[in-house]
Amino acid sequence: MGYYEVEFEPVGRRGKCRDDESVLDCAHRLGVGIVSLCGGRGKFHCCKIQIIKGSVSKPTKSEIEFFSSEELKDGYRLACQTYLKSNCKIKVPLESLTTPQRLQLEGLEIGVKLNPPVKSCDVKLSPPSMVDLRGDDERIMDDLNHQFNLSCRKFDIDVLKNMSSLLRSSRWEARVFVRDNEVVSISSKHSSGLGLAVDLGTTKIAGYLLDLDSGKTLSSSGVMNPQISYGEDIVSRITYAMESPAKKKKLQEVVVNTLNSLTADLCRRANVEKERIVEAVIVGNTVMHHLLLDLPVDQLAVSPFVPAVQNSLDVKSRDIGLNIAPGAYIHLLPNIAGFVGADHVAMLLATERIWKDDDLVIALDIGTNTEVSLIDNGDITSVSCASGPAFEGAHIKDGMRATNGAIERLQLIGDEVKYQTIGKVPPVGLCGSGILDAIAQLYLAGVISRDGKMNDHPRIRFHNNQKEFVLVDEKENGSPAITITQKDVREIQLAKGAIRSGIDVLLQERGHFEQEIKKVIIAGAFGSYINVASAVSIGMLPPLPLNRFQQVGNAAGIGAKLALLSIEERFKAEAIAHRASYIELAASPDFEKIFLRATYLG
Amino acid sequence: MGYYEVEFEPVGRRGKCRDDESVLDCAHRLGVGIVSLCGGRGKFHCCKIQIIKGSVSKPTKSEIEFFSSEELKDGYRLACQTYLKSNCKIKVPLESLTTPQRLQLEGLEIGVKLNPPVKSCDVKLSPPSMVDLRGDDERIMDDLNHQFNLSCRKFDIDVLKNMSSLLRSSRWEARVFVRDNEVVSISSKHSSGLGLAVDLGTTKIAGYLLDLDSGKTLSSSGVMNPQISYGEDIVSRITYAMESPAKKKKLQEVVVNTLNSLTADLCRRANVEKERIVEAVIVGNTVMHHLLLDLPVDQLAVSPFVPAVQNSLDVKSRDIGLNIAPGAYIHLLPNIAGFVGADHVAMLLATERIWKDDDLVIALDIGTNTEVSLIDNGDITSVSCASGPAFEGAHIKDGMRATNGAIERLQLIGDEVKYQTIGKVPPVGLCGSGILDAIAQLYLAGVISRDGKMNDHPRIRFHNNQKEFVLVDEKENGSPAITITQKDVREIQLAKGAIRSGIDVLLQERGHFEQEIKKVIIAGAFGSYINVASAVSIGMLPPLPLNRFQQVGNAAGIGAKLALLSIEERFKAEAIAHRASYIELAASPDFEKIFLRATYLG
Repeated sequence: MGYYEVEFEPVGRRGKCRDDESVLDCAHRLGVGIVSLCGGRGKFHCCKIQIIKGSVSKPTKSEIEFFSSEELKDGYRLACQTYLKSNCKIKVPLESLTTPQRLQLEGLEIGVKLNPPVKSCDVKLSPPSMVDLRGDDERIMDDLNHQFNLSCRKFDIDVLKNMSSLLRSSRWEARVFVRDNEVVSISSKHSSGLGLAVDLGTTKIAGYLLDLDSGKTLSSSGVMNPQISYGEDIVSRITYAMESPAKKKKLQEVVVNTLNSLTADLCRRANVEKERIVEAVIVGNTVMHHLLLDLPVDQLAVSPFVPAVQNSLDVKSRDIGLNIAPGAYIHLLPNIAGFVGADHVAMLLATERIWKDDDLVIALDIGTNTEVSLIDNGDITSVSCASGPAFEGAHIKDGMRATNGAIERLQLIGDEVKYQTIGKVPPVGLCGSGILDAIAQLYLAGVISRDGKMNDHPRIRFHNNQKEFVLVDEKENGSPAITITQKDVREIQLAKGAIRSGIDVLLQERGHFEQEIKKVIIAGAFGSYINVASAVSIGMLPPLPLNRFQQVGNAAGIGAKLALLSIEERFKAEAIAHRASYIELAASPDFEKIFLRATYLG
Repeated sequence: MGYYEVEFEPVGRRGKCRDDESVLDCAHRLGVGIVSLCGGRGKFHCCKIQIIKGSVSKPTKSEIEFFSSEELKDGYRLACQTYLKSNCKIKVPLESLTTPQRLQLEGLEIGVKLNPPVKSCDVKLSPPSMVDLRGDDERIMDDLNHQFNLSCRKFDIDVLKNMSSLLRSSRWEARVFVRDNEVVSISSKHSSGLGLAVDLGTTKIAGYLLDLDSGKTLSSSGVMNPQISYGEDIVSRITYAMESPAKKKKLQEVVVNTLNSLTADLCRRANVEKERIVEAVIVGNTVMHHLLLDLPVDQLAVSPFVPAVQNSLDVKSRDIGLNIAPGAYIHLLPNIAGFVGADHVAMLLATERIWKDDDLVIALDIGTNTEVSLIDNGDITSVSCASGPAFEGAHIKDGMRATNGAIERLQLIGDEVKYQTIGKVPPVGLCGSGILDAIAQLYLAGVISRDGKMNDHPRIRFHNNQKEFVLVDEKENGSPAITITQKDVREIQLAKGAIRSGIDVLLQERGHFEQEIKKVIIAGAFGSYINVASAVSIGMLPPLPLNRFQQVGNAAGIGAKLALLSIEERFKAEAIAHRASYIELAASPDFEKIFLRATYLG
């Protein structure tokens, strides 16, 4: 038994590969998520890879049948059929990756030049005496300003409450955290200041705890947005909030409580105290942003839908009740419009290096609300699409969140349904990417027509007065059948129609054709897990070569991290927001026609 | 019956005087408080005045007996014996005034060049439309910065909560209150912003409501400091606060509650809403300052007694729970030392024009704690004296606050006691100035020796095992007797000794003699009501000509008003605090000796 060095591209994962394990097994062992529907039998051709450098085993019969000789010459192979014969560099095409998003922007925040808004300064003071009666504030300020060349003039009131006893118990040595000209925290230990980055989504909340000295992410965690109980989408949340000030306040309370437990969880995972968090950045769409701050949302319910707050904002953590260092600020990135918020700005910030040098780019963040931007020579035009929560699994009969047991990949081979579940456990439902694959496969197989109508098929049955396609039947694993109903198809048509019409309106308004698009950047958890080929098949995304699509994961979260680590990134975010103009979809003269067309499959 | 024009100096009060009313009656009618112990019979020579211009009735027998021919030539007369014969200008010497303080600095704040830290700006905005989608914040900021040439960048979070609905209901017109680069309040009405000035004393709290546009005081009011229940003086308050964080917090709570009712009262009197108050200035001694902000006081209990906060401070009103405009700041002037606080800085600020051009000035603010500064060619040296609450009437058997029924002036004529009460009602006790007069008169009459021992006298009796001098006996008005006990004398000796030793230590430390003092500025309610001659008689103040003393009333409150109305005054206050150095009395090598000597009368 021998070992070879292997490197997977564009992931950048390196490791050793045994000569008796398939590339697929090696990839899984090294944490590179390659799709595998047949369990390594070479049957479904879903684990396509490309050998860039090095030599491997000869193509098997299954590979020779599947690939053209041209493709084989170019090094295309199936990972489950291939064994290394030397050190190799292997490219994994996007469509073969299960979790491409983790790989595109991961670590981007480490690359940023660290210049966090909060600086840590170590002071060592002479204690007061009868000949040096300066107050504690003056004593620290003098030292700070002389030693670090600052012009610090202010202390947060909560810092002052603990400072005097801290100085006396720590023998007049302390680490002082300074933001602009204000001391926002003080510690007797020399441990680094921490930052909290939050992507506050309509449905999900993702939190990251960062070390501001190293830029490293110490822990990350996700929870559901508890506001869901008061309305699934932003419009129903606005409606609820408008019923009374108390109800609006309630929406703030539940989300702040959840942020507090999320923060506690992040700190527990990293084994640190929450008081060490000296700055937070929270990004969300405009409605999430406003509800978090208990700002009015009434004006978001009527045309022209302008935000109460558009510019970036710094709010003391205590003013919204976030339990971090009491003097810490929460920075909120600017909003572009009433329905294109700071999360989209964060996403554009995180992906700037991807779009800035290209002529025509579409950047979209798919979620319960989907924001789409067309970037045309630096000009940014944005729309907001009410795509709804179907892709989060809601309103879909067997839909579920992307957790263990969810079908995440699915293929129809003849009349046989092959699928892969998260956690490789028996299936219990479909998550967004599985639903998308299912609709695409049924459409491609002709089981669903362009208008979404289900045709006859051996797996089609009537159940509860409605047609449904059985993906997994009752007998298969002794649990209820997993099906796609006619109603599910309609839901997906509306959702994908909302997204596609957003893209189409942008192109029309700016006078472009879809073939001019050089790149489509897809952000958001769902968008990053999907099989782009499926999304193109059903016409959710425009019919472009697959290599023009880039799935970038939770780019909004990455943008929040960047804004946490660098003042320059905040300036960049401001610039992006100022360059962006907003188009109201409903105000576009052809919108209804475009939307109707976009609901058709294909 | 004819009328003449009369003008009283230095009060500056003008009016008409009938030819058949005495100058005393006329003065009282015009609100000029001239002492009157004999009820206008010319017996006690306490209503001395000086005719500066104009002619009056001939001197009566009583006047000729009392005044020297020199004095009569200089125009000295008794107000109760004098009638006008032409228009006159009359000077009322300080010792004849009952309420001199109201007259010295009153209206000083109107003279200041208005430049309040909060500016009011009227904006008239174009409403949002499909072609102008700016957020509400951006819309206001653009208008503000262009129209008023500001660089406003921030909104208080609480302003943002109401701004959007306000703009929509007021047809996009509003008055915006801007502080530095931050919007701190917004109103749909065009009424001026208000300011709250507070002198937070250990015993009393004085509040003033000001119009920031005109500089005028709209209402003023005083209440007791509720912290008294937890300790009469600052040392006992510190002791209480150190017992537990909850107790310290309690001291903050009670004082904030009282400030809130004081504010409500001020607003009711002026018929305005408290939300119109867009800025507050609060001055107090360092302990009051720290307790108000819930800052640590432990370090004020041990040498070298340094404050946690020495510099000026801006705190959001909501951060301490003061109910004014939610986005408003409270400005706290700088403290000089642990026991010479922002109230003394405010007093020095208000009296700057009195001391700045003189060579050697003593400025003292008499209260439960008395701060004394020696101003020597611009250098300020300060001490703090624990004078205690005796002059507020506490610890004195028949002591009381300066309210109706309190004896405020007192004279011993032979064995007869003549007195004047506040409100001219029957006496119920003695307020500070009455106690001081009593001790001085008893000392001058030899009833009390230099060491404070009571000698024999027809009005001396034993009561409850202790010597006491009967000022008003039981029969006189059917209520309990009003007496000065031996213990009262001891209390006053300690109180006056504390003050005098402060002055003496300052002179010694700076190498000066008391005769070099050009002016003694006496601030504080008590200090302004006292008969300076009495204070000099018992040796509370140094033996200087009476015209070197200036009683200036609540100068700390005036200083707070000045800092409310003008940023320049705040800079001045900073400069004063920086020029001041502090001497710890107890650390002075001769302190015990000096203090002991100072407790002697005379």
